[in-house]
Amino acid sequence: MSSGRPRATSRSTIAEAATELFLERGFAETTIADITQRAGVSRSSFFNYFSSKSAVLWAALDDAIHSAVEALRAGAAPSAALRAAAVHIQADSLALAIIHGSVMGLSDELADERAIRTGILSRAVSDSLVSTGMARLEADVHAAALSATVFAAIWAWAASDAPRPALSGLVDRALGAAGASR
Amino acid sequence: MSSGRPRATSRSTIAEAATELFLERGFAETTIADITQRAGVSRSSFFNYFSSKSAVLWAALDDAIHSAVEALRAGAAPSAALRAAAVHIQADSLALAIIHGSVMGLSDELADERAIRTGILSRAVSDSLVSTGMARLEADVHAAALSATVFAAIWAWAASDAPRPALSGLVDRALGAAGASR
Repeated sequence: MSSGRPRATSRSTIAEAATELFLERGFAETTIADITQRAGVSRSSFFNYFSSKSAVLWAALDDAIHSAVEALRAGAAPSAALRAAAVHIQADSLALAIIHGSVMGLSDELADERAIRTGILSRAVSDSLVSTGMARLEADVHAAALSATVFAAIWAWAASDAPRPALSGLVDRALGAAGASR
Repeated sequence: MSSGRPRATSRSTIAEAATELFLERGFAETTIADITQRAGVSRSSFFNYFSSKSAVLWAALDDAIHSAVEALRAGAAPSAALRAAAVHIQADSLALAIIHGSVMGLSDELADERAIRTGILSRAVSDSLVSTGMARLEADVHAAALSATVFAAIWAWAASDAPRPALSGLVDRALGAAGASR
């Protein structure tokens, strides 16, 4: 999807309206009707871009995770698959939610949703390591460290003062901590 | 209220009845009323031991996680806190659920619940590492690997043929993979 097309504009308009409302009222108190009214779009337009209220925050990251899982299944090396996915993440709504999680009433939800996605990525990485001959126990532990890199980098990126460092640099630093060269 | 059995026996009777029913009917189709009827205990007796149907599987592990988080907050070294917690886990119902997850209709729930608990432990370990001076990014990555050790060990233990190896030995092996000596 190229920038400047109507689709991209509607999508970002919805995401901006939703993020504003989450900040003003809290996540739980904001309805999809509130979001479509603020954004000036129809309900069907909302569901054209997002499957749920929560997806406004997570859709960009979920697309990147989906790409990484596909790449791992196709035989990509774990650190390369994670680095490639992280480069394409455009997660401004999520970054705002991370910074303002307590104002939005989202701290617990963010932690659980982060953990579930770390688990999805970790299982894919573990399967990939097992397919190269590593035992499941060791694969699970290495996979947990590798998949945590993407989330540690996003959280560090969101928490950074402007101008934010490049997400890819933080991913490389996190991969270094995970001993990705092993 | 009590069926006259000692407390420890009631708890294990309820857990056994629940696990049988999850195997026979699936987790979603089993009600708490089904479990109390099979176990021959009252509803209030069930809630004396477990907060929910799901807690029958997770209560033992959650107790161990709670102990580990408390130990970390009190200043215990991460690998020591995780090893101490793992030694005390009595998770036979969970082990059966891991082995028979697809029969019980529990595969997705097990994966998400495992991920959420890994996240809880990981945040406690990361906070502990940050308090010793490690940067959050590196702490998150090391914490993910360390907290994954407990779950990797439990899943490996559940999947082992009888006689099962000691869980503590598997935890030590997983801690080795996580580079716990760093």
